[in-house]
Amino acid sequence: MDFETGDLVEIKNKKGIFRGIVMPRHAFSGEDIIILKLDNGYNIGIKVDDETKIKIISKGLSKKTERKSKINENGIPVSVLGTGGTIASYIDYSTGAVKPAVSQEELLLAIPEIEENYRIKSRTIFSILSENMKVKNWKVIAEEAFKDLDDSRGIIIPHGTDTMAYTASALAFMIQNLPSPIILVGAQRSSDRPSSDAYLNLIYSLKLVETDLGEVVISMHGSTSDTFVQVHRGVRARKMHTSRRDAFRSINEKPIAIIENEVRFISSYRKRSGPPVLRTGMDEKVALLYYYPNMDPEILLDIGSRMHGIIIAGTGLGHVSNDMIPVIRDLVSRGVFVGVTSQCLYGSVNLNVYSTGREMIIAGAVPLKDMLPEVAYVKLMWVLENYPGEERDKMLQNLVGEISERRVGIEYV
Amino acid sequence: MDFETGDLVEIKNKKGIFRGIVMPRHAFSGEDIIILKLDNGYNIGIKVDDETKIKIISKGLSKKTERKSKINENGIPVSVLGTGGTIASYIDYSTGAVKPAVSQEELLLAIPEIEENYRIKSRTIFSILSENMKVKNWKVIAEEAFKDLDDSRGIIIPHGTDTMAYTASALAFMIQNLPSPIILVGAQRSSDRPSSDAYLNLIYSLKLVETDLGEVVISMHGSTSDTFVQVHRGVRARKMHTSRRDAFRSINEKPIAIIENEVRFISSYRKRSGPPVLRTGMDEKVALLYYYPNMDPEILLDIGSRMHGIIIAGTGLGHVSNDMIPVIRDLVSRGVFVGVTSQCLYGSVNLNVYSTGREMIIAGAVPLKDMLPEVAYVKLMWVLENYPGEERDKMLQNLVGEISERRVGIEYV
Repeated sequence: MDFETGDLVEIKNKKGIFRGIVMPRHAFSGEDIIILKLDNGYNIGIKVDDETKIKIISKGLSKKTERKSKINENGIPVSVLGTGGTIASYIDYSTGAVKPAVSQEELLLAIPEIEENYRIKSRTIFSILSENMKVKNWKVIAEEAFKDLDDSRGIIIPHGTDTMAYTASALAFMIQNLPSPIILVGAQRSSDRPSSDAYLNLIYSLKLVETDLGEVVISMHGSTSDTFVQVHRGVRARKMHTSRRDAFRSINEKPIAIIENEVRFISSYRKRSGPPVLRTGMDEKVALLYYYPNMDPEILLDIGSRMHGIIIAGTGLGHVSNDMIPVIRDLVSRGVFVGVTSQCLYGSVNLNVYSTGREMIIAGAVPLKDMLPEVAYVKLMWVLENYPGEERDKMLQNLVGEISERRVGIEYV
Repeated sequence: MDFETGDLVEIKNKKGIFRGIVMPRHAFSGEDIIILKLDNGYNIGIKVDDETKIKIISKGLSKKTERKSKINENGIPVSVLGTGGTIASYIDYSTGAVKPAVSQEELLLAIPEIEENYRIKSRTIFSILSENMKVKNWKVIAEEAFKDLDDSRGIIIPHGTDTMAYTASALAFMIQNLPSPIILVGAQRSSDRPSSDAYLNLIYSLKLVETDLGEVVISMHGSTSDTFVQVHRGVRARKMHTSRRDAFRSINEKPIAIIENEVRFISSYRKRSGPPVLRTGMDEKVALLYYYPNMDPEILLDIGSRMHGIIIAGTGLGHVSNDMIPVIRDLVSRGVFVGVTSQCLYGSVNLNVYSTGREMIIAGAVPLKDMLPEVAYVKLMWVLENYPGEERDKMLQNLVGEISERRVGIEYV
């Protein structure tokens, strides 16, 4: 069979006749599968065996010329800000690795519904794997999103999943009083794979711009199949699985909404407001440290000494061993903010129950209720820069949903 | 009402007449509740209002004299090794804090079934809150358990829940080829509280000694009510909630068994074998570091430089940012073992998918499959001491169930 990537072909097998452009082959599948981009823009994977017939209709149609972008002037205005990640990646067939490569335009063009319903203003801010995100990237994303807030009904941010929750938290603190939702969306399978979750996540996420939601959220698969999307509050989400499509979970609260064709809100949320306030300042002298038994207190001392603030993820209700407490006292006396969260992730810290916790409080540690360790890390950077002298109050105050006011009906599964 | 703790009283309210010893009062309840230890050994909480009548039968029976231990010579021999924690705690009514105070004997005496069915050999090794557990404590527990393995059908280790999973992992590596199960059991509510989960956890855990189980396990509530206990493989368990009774979860595999009156095994397990092998050596120059965006590479360098091994909990499939990779290379070149796990907790690391991961592998990082970060930390201490020169092979080899051989039917909820 002499066809190659980019050829227009017709494939006939037991299931029918399929016509489309040959896409790069799925690198991880053990089966012999051809991926076709159909006329309707969707990719499908077709199993090939001895009885399959493949006819080349025409050679070498490039993906870029295949379809042209049309601006739908009557569509709902949406801003799409590409940042990279798997959702914007293709498999590098020389190595089998996934690399950020696909452009915003290519991604969006694959989905005909999008240009039918929305007036997309799309640009790629940068294209990086999210493990490389830095505070400076968060600031750029916030600034770019802020620019478009007034002219768009929603901001979609395709983003790598690895640190998506950290970025979502940063944006939630950096831009408040949102007139439009800021929706981070990703994929666990690159967009050129037939199993990619990119398309459902994107299409369903876009439905949020038609609601009154005014928060920073993460919108990702809610199950392993292509059935529904869960909308997680940015400051409550955590990537809890390395590879499954439903990798994200809302921790210590229910998701905000389920999207299955329609958006169904299942818990309370902030509605669109305004005018938005942009404060991107971050004190980068903050660290996050998960405690473990037998930890050398020197580790806490060394890291803490070079920081303005440190978040400890203690055990259970927030504990560390007794020999860490003098270090906490020392750090606090030198003006370092020491916040306490739990490595359990679910539930709230409480340093009033056991003697260890009480001594931690006397030493100056601040228990941060049911805030996630990672969110506390991001928030502390923001609070130190924006509320000098009020760190304690602001860290304990629920600003954008990062702390539960009341703990009722919390999911923990 | 002039009764006090230790008095034998009769309480009459709408629900009936109750006779028993007054226990220390529940400090956290907003309601006016008296806790009575009944003749059958159980504690119950009785709500007191204006119409409740309380009669003092006799003053000041101390808890210690209330019941006497009887040795049941025909019972199944079980060794109980107390280590402290909430399960062995009472509330300190001067401060409202929970302190380790209750003796092994007191705890066991509260449960009549235990001495009916089992010949308990009980001693308190130490009494500490588990956040203070050190490697030296793990060694003592292992040595004490090892001593009793031949003469007991099972070893029960009441233990604080905060670091129970770390201790269970340590014991799983330190003592192999178990002729009897080693069962860690704890409580999220201290034993003097009417809501305590200590009793069900203890009674149900004891049923395991009548099975052919030959592993180190954690046996704790499987739901928020007193209905069933889940048995988790020690090297797969994690405390996932700060306060709920069902705080523990098996990660990346199903629990080994459910106990609801009877023990029901729901996944494969190692059966009793022998003779047991005790190797308590641990290289304490090991650290665990959760990566986060914007982490200063100097942190990894500083911690890693003083260690013989470091476990990184990376993002997603195990990633760190590109600027950490030269530090990994530097550490590895100096002989430091750098193991990679995922902060997602669920799922397996895979450093072959993205360019970042491939570069981490080239730098010498070792991806540790689906091992939990905390388990990898404990295992690396043990491997460095017991298998010098074979660290890589041993870390990648499934020794006691800490790595999945095949990944089928894994629970992720």
